[in-house]
Order: sequence, then C-alpha cells, then structure tokens
Amino acid sequence: MSTMKIGIVGLGLIGGSLGLDLRALNHQIWGVSRKATTCEIALSRGVVDQASTELSSLQGAEIVIICTPINAIADTLQQLIPYLDHNAIVTDVGSVKKPIVDQCSALWSNFIGGHPMAGTAEQGINAAQSNLFQGAAYVFTPNPETKTIYLDKLQTLASSVGAKPYICAAQVHDRAVAWISHLPVMISASLISSCLGESDPEVLKLAKQLASSGFRDTSRVGGGNPELGKMMAEYNHQALLRSLYAYRNNLDCIIELIEQEKWDKLAESLQTNQQSRPEFLN
Amino acid sequence: MSTMKIGIVGLGLIGGSLGLDLRALNHQIWGVSRKATTCEIALSRGVVDQASTELSSLQGAEIVIICTPINAIADTLQQLIPYLDHNAIVTDVGSVKKPIVDQCSALWSNFIGGHPMAGTAEQGINAAQSNLFQGAAYVFTPNPETKTIYLDKLQTLASSVGAKPYICAAQVHDRAVAWISHLPVMISASLISSCLGESDPEVLKLAKQLASSGFRDTSRVGGGNPELGKMMAEYNHQALLRSLYAYRNNLDCIIELIEQEKWDKLAESLQTNQQSRPEFLN
Repeated sequence: MSTMKIGIVGLGLIGGSLGLDLRALNHQIWGVSRKATTCEIALSRGVVDQASTELSSLQGAEIVIICTPINAIADTLQQLIPYLDHNAIVTDVGSVKKPIVDQCSALWSNFIGGHPMAGTAEQGINAAQSNLFQGAAYVFTPNPETKTIYLDKLQTLASSVGAKPYICAAQVHDRAVAWISHLPVMISASLISSCLGESDPEVLKLAKQLASSGFRDTSRVGGGNPELGKMMAEYNHQALLRSLYAYRNNLDCIIELIEQEKWDKLAESLQTNQQSRPEFLN
Repeated sequence: MSTMKIGIVGLGLIGGSLGLDLRALNHQIWGVSRKATTCEIALSRGVVDQASTELSSLQGAEIVIICTPINAIADTLQQLIPYLDHNAIVTDVGSVKKPIVDQCSALWSNFIGGHPMAGTAEQGINAAQSNLFQGAAYVFTPNPETKTIYLDKLQTLASSVGAKPYICAAQVHDRAVAWISHLPVMISASLISSCLGESDPEVLKLAKQLASSGFRDTSRVGGGNPELGKMMAEYNHQALLRSLYAYRNNLDCIIELIEQEKWDKLAESLQTNQQSRPEFLN
C-alpha cells in the first residue's frame, strides 16, 4: 500500500498505538491532542511525525482517525470539517457505532465508523504500544452510501497493523458487542454490588477472605473504569437493554430450576453452556 | 507435629494431592478408592503408602479424610464407622458444609467438616499434585460439641500443607461460598445461555467472532463442569437462592438506571464496585 498522510485526533492508548504502527509502515502521521504535553510525549516517543493542539494542522490529510472518547467524536468531526479535503476519509474508534455513524455520516459523507477491539488496562499516551492490534478484530460499519474504494482503503490499513477486519451494519455491531462486551460489564458489576449488600458482617468478611479465581474472573469487567462503563451504557443503551432483558429471563429460568429442585434440567443447561462456550473463544 | 496414620477415601485431585503433601511430611497414608486401577496409580505415583478398595483397610487410622464427591460423603462415613477407633477424627473436603455436617455429625461425633479451597481444571488421580494447597484457604466448620483438641489437630494439618485455616459455622461458610463461588457460576452460565438465545444469526455469528477477554473471563466459571455446578446448586440451594434473589434485585436496579437514563447514578454505582472489588482479592 502506498504511504499516506494520516491524521490522528486524540493521542491516547488507541490513537497512540495506531500512530506507532502506521508510522512504522512509513505513513506520515500528524497528531492532534488537546494537551500540549501529550503532543510533546507523542513526538518524543515517535508516535507521530508532527503534533499540534489545532485541528487545522490536519489540512491535506488523506485519512483522519478520530480516537477521542465516544462523547467527543461528532463534535470533533464538526470542528474538523473546514480543514478537510473533499475526498478525505474520516473514521473513528468508538466502541458503539449506530449513534456515532448516524451523526457523523450526516456531517461528512466519507465517514466510515470503525472499532478496533484491542486494549489494555492502561490508558493514555504513555500506554501506547507497538503491535497492539496484532490479531485483534477491527470492525467497520459502512452505510449504503459508503464508497467501496474508501472502505477498501480502511480495511487495508487495518490489515496492515495486523488486525482482522470485519464489515457489518452499525446496528449489528452494537447488538453483538452488547452481548459480548457491555452485558458482561453490567452482570459482573451486579455481582460485586450484590455481594457488598450482604447484611451479615461475618458472612461478608468470610466471603472477602475466601474469594478466589472464580470471583476474580467473574467480577473483573464489573470492577473496571466506571466512566467507560457509563459511556458504553449511555451510547449503546438500546442494544444493551435488549440483552439485559434476555439475560434476566434466563436468570429467572435458572432460579426457577433451583426453586423447583430440577437438578437434571439444571445440569443439562450447564452442559449446553460448557459445550457452546468454545464457539466464543478464538 | 508427630506423624500419624491418615486415611484418605477418594483418590481424586484433592484426595491425591493431600496424600502427596502429607506423605512428604512423613505421615503414613492409607488410601481407599472404589477402583483398583486408581489404587495402583496412587501407589505408583507415591500418593499413598498402601491402597485398597475396602474401607476396612482404614482400621487404626487416627484421621480419615473423606474426599469423595459431596453426594457420597455421608454414605461413605456410614460404611466406615464399623472400622473406626472410637477417638478417630473424620473430616471431609466438600464444597458445601451445612447439610453434610448435619448428617455426618449425627453419625460420628468426632466429625468436623472441612473445605480446602484449591483446585485445577483437571480432575482425578492423574491431576494430583504437590503443593496444591499452598496459600489456599482451608475452612473448618466445627459444631458446639466439637472438641478443641481435634479441631486443633486438623488446623495444624491444614497449615502443614501450606493452607490457611479458617473456622466458622457451617451456615456462614455456605452463605459466603454462595456469594463468591456458587452465584458466579449461575450468573456466568446465564450469560452464555442468553447469548446463545440471540435470534438474529448475523448478530450471533459476529458476537462469537468478536468475543474476547471480557467475555472469556465473565463466562469462564459458567462454562465449567456441569455435574459440579449441579451438585453445588443442589447441596447449597438455600444459600444460593438467597444470593440469587439479592443479585436479581441488584440487576433490576441497574436495568432501571439504564431505562431511566440515569447515567451519573450508574457511574456512581460502578465506581463503588471499582473501589470495593480489591477487598475481595487477596
């Protein structure tokens, strides 16, 4: 693939890591961050070729990747438009797609939603690392107006950093990630809150002492970044509620099996889970 | 501690691993398994000094540790009684204590419930390993009739294999493990079943493709051994239902916050979880 001028707005974990990998492929990377100190770190770490706090610095970019938090994506695009070449491709890395794609496609016809599914527990420019996307899924959510040539360009870019591109409608993406990413956060969070609600202090104390890998794994995503959890719930609330309702029905079925002491039926259901879980593990 | 003649009934992962560690401390270990082949493997792996398919072989043991599945513990004790010295201590390793302690204390006054909280994904005599209990919790659930001298002996034994002994009432144990071990299995199982219930094949397929560490961790214990899950639910169903009802209330609260779009309240609740979770991680 020929080298390009690529703008990255938001130099955090994802933006910074994309910069490192794309720069290593000889693309010219122009970074924008709200903070001058982040620009300095990005430059000194070799994440970008040039960095600025001004969106106007991206004039002439062929592709702009918006890597800000979800709630800043549409605003950023709006402010960026005066400086964009008419055939510039804009994409984002937000973990929810439908509301973003709806807003951003209305602003810029060459906007194609994207979601690279990689991360670490760390955040910020200092957490940026090479090869973060190696083997990760990278979803693009074109709409019917999207030009194939632009979609192809983004897919090639994703593949070039080692990611595996998937193409689907924004709503399909949002429903799928509601199941495998956002629902787990909520049910895991409920586990922690309900344990904390134990009214017998001796039981609560012992539970804390005895908790081991089972509790640790099941509670991990529910004990994560609250702002991220809030944001995914807010932006994906329709798909998330859809999954939560189905989940609650399922939980009620399990409770009923236990109340009615239908142990063989419970074992059957657990067996189906054991057999099917590997289909979700790549 | 002086060396003793210790009987182990049931030479699986737990029984076998206890045998390895206790034998390394120069105790004389007499093993009993239903299967002659298990006896042979136990002997050849150095898990026991002698092995038999007959409980009568345990005559003269000072301590007998019943390491059978939960549903065989009381039966085993019943059949063992004719061969026990009158001051022999009997303990078990079942993951639920109240129903077992109630049954077994009525059969043998020197019965003290035990639960070493260690394991691996593997089962059986071939999975037995040294130092399995290093750093693990080992709960004993004496009743008011239990003689301190016998409880002390078991605590010392647990400490000698590197475990950390805890003493509590059987019901307190069962409620605590319902929170941190049995409830996680059920909510994790519901996650898998509800995902599998997705009616749109495109969404289900993409969910399977995109699932990564968040789904993997949250679904792990729900995709485990179905017989084990069934047995813990059956034996601990009162404490488990108590936790499940509290959990469902909590889930309803989260659903309500999302329905009513109370994002700041949701973030607050997630923040409490994030702050409190480390109290459960040792």
